[in-house]
Amino acid sequence: MALFSSLTPVFIAIICVLIGVIMKKTNGEKEKRDTKSKHPSRPWVDEDLKDGTDHPLEEEEWQGLEENVAHVPFTGERYSEAEMIKRSQAFYELLNKRRSVRFLSDEPVPREVIDNVIRTAGTSPSGAHTEPWTFVVVQDPYLKRKIREIVEEEEEINYKKRMGDRWVNDLKRLRTNWIKEYLDTAPYLILIFKQVYGRLPNGKKKTHYYNEISVSIACGILLAALQVRVFPGHLSLADLCLRASQNACIE
Amino acid sequence: MALFSSLTPVFIAIICVLIGVIMKKTNGEKEKRDTKSKHPSRPWVDEDLKDGTDHPLEEEEWQGLEENVAHVPFTGERYSEAEMIKRSQAFYELLNKRRSVRFLSDEPVPREVIDNVIRTAGTSPSGAHTEPWTFVVVQDPYLKRKIREIVEEEEEINYKKRMGDRWVNDLKRLRTNWIKEYLDTAPYLILIFKQVYGRLPNGKKKTHYYNEISVSIACGILLAALQVRVFPGHLSLADLCLRASQNACIE
Repeated sequence: MALFSSLTPVFIAIICVLIGVIMKKTNGEKEKRDTKSKHPSRPWVDEDLKDGTDHPLEEEEWQGLEENVAHVPFTGERYSEAEMIKRSQAFYELLNKRRSVRFLSDEPVPREVIDNVIRTAGTSPSGAHTEPWTFVVVQDPYLKRKIREIVEEEEEINYKKRMGDRWVNDLKRLRTNWIKEYLDTAPYLILIFKQVYGRLPNGKKKTHYYNEISVSIACGILLAALQVRVFPGHLSLADLCLRASQNACIE
Repeated sequence: MALFSSLTPVFIAIICVLIGVIMKKTNGEKEKRDTKSKHPSRPWVDEDLKDGTDHPLEEEEWQGLEENVAHVPFTGERYSEAEMIKRSQAFYELLNKRRSVRFLSDEPVPREVIDNVIRTAGTSPSGAHTEPWTFVVVQDPYLKRKIREIVEEEEEINYKKRMGDRWVNDLKRLRTNWIKEYLDTAPYLILIFKQVYGRLPNGKKKTHYYNEISVSIACGILLAALQVRVFPGHLSLADLCLRASQNACIE
């Protein structure tokens, strides 16, 4: 462990909380709608196009939309081709130093850095700009311990029951298992919650489309923001996807 | 359109091809396995833990794994707290300039820059380090046109049939519709394919776990790499998730 004490712990333990909301009713409606329409239902599309409403728009409702367009012009800085090549190369070399580390030091990190990193992740694009994410920073040792317990319990089940031999063998090569000591040692855990729906003013649920993809993209930007400080931006996909434990976290 | 000609087009049209492979057989096996086990089946976990095998490991197979661990020490550069705060703030300000632009110029961009950006995305973490992504750069005008046709056809169906009123209203605020002229004007399209499985030496399928999350994280890192060159790293989630058209692209 000492070997790894040079690692900054703040980059670990990004847990993407994927709330297991299954919108059966909505599914039903979508299927009805699609079979009614002259277009065949395409599960791989419909999957992410769930909505709590059952009123597809008619052709004519789209008329006049084009005249109505009022986009905002973008003015960005420019670089020469040589400069673009140089910058893109340098950024590749920096991010290529990131490693998914499993042993971390408890060395403190300024909270302002964490806040900047989360702010950066919050610039991520999202479906219909719903920004379906919630970032929670955990510092309390007791809470970190409870989170570790939940994560390890679920991971042990994953390794022993849920995963197949092939995946387990992949992971053996990586020397990982369900023990996640770093969840205790890291001074911060950043929990990332996926919001599968929002609330309308009338209190009704409003589906957040492509929410898992949106949150995962934000995680990628968060990783880049962590790495830009030239410390290993850690993301354990195992943690990221521990949906059961994540669910438990917010119960 | 002219207003937007200062935009570099290369940052647009990231299309995440989500191949619609449904592993029913595997599901069935997983359910059997989980109901056999003393642990309840947790759909929100199992969903991403599909595997082509049906042989969960037994407790004793895990013994001795710990003694066996041989991790690689990490040595990264260090920054002072003040420097970390400064760098994280600067990166936030840079990424906060990113916009999801819909009108682009056809101005050429060095291919080397595209290659660096894709290399950077390739540093993303992935489930069991399967790296379940394929990046395809398209320059041929005819192929770009065919891709645009497929995307627009599916998007029109999305807007008119698949989406509900709520989402459509969300999008009206954003002034978007299914017309994606930028897919013609951008000198490069970066198609991002999700590999839902790989092949074992014996030719058998090997599931790539958490592949959608892994690819989406790589997309976030790709966006950051684009933006680092201080041009708008564009990602349209609509494009990103056009699974039907993406499927069609690779047929």
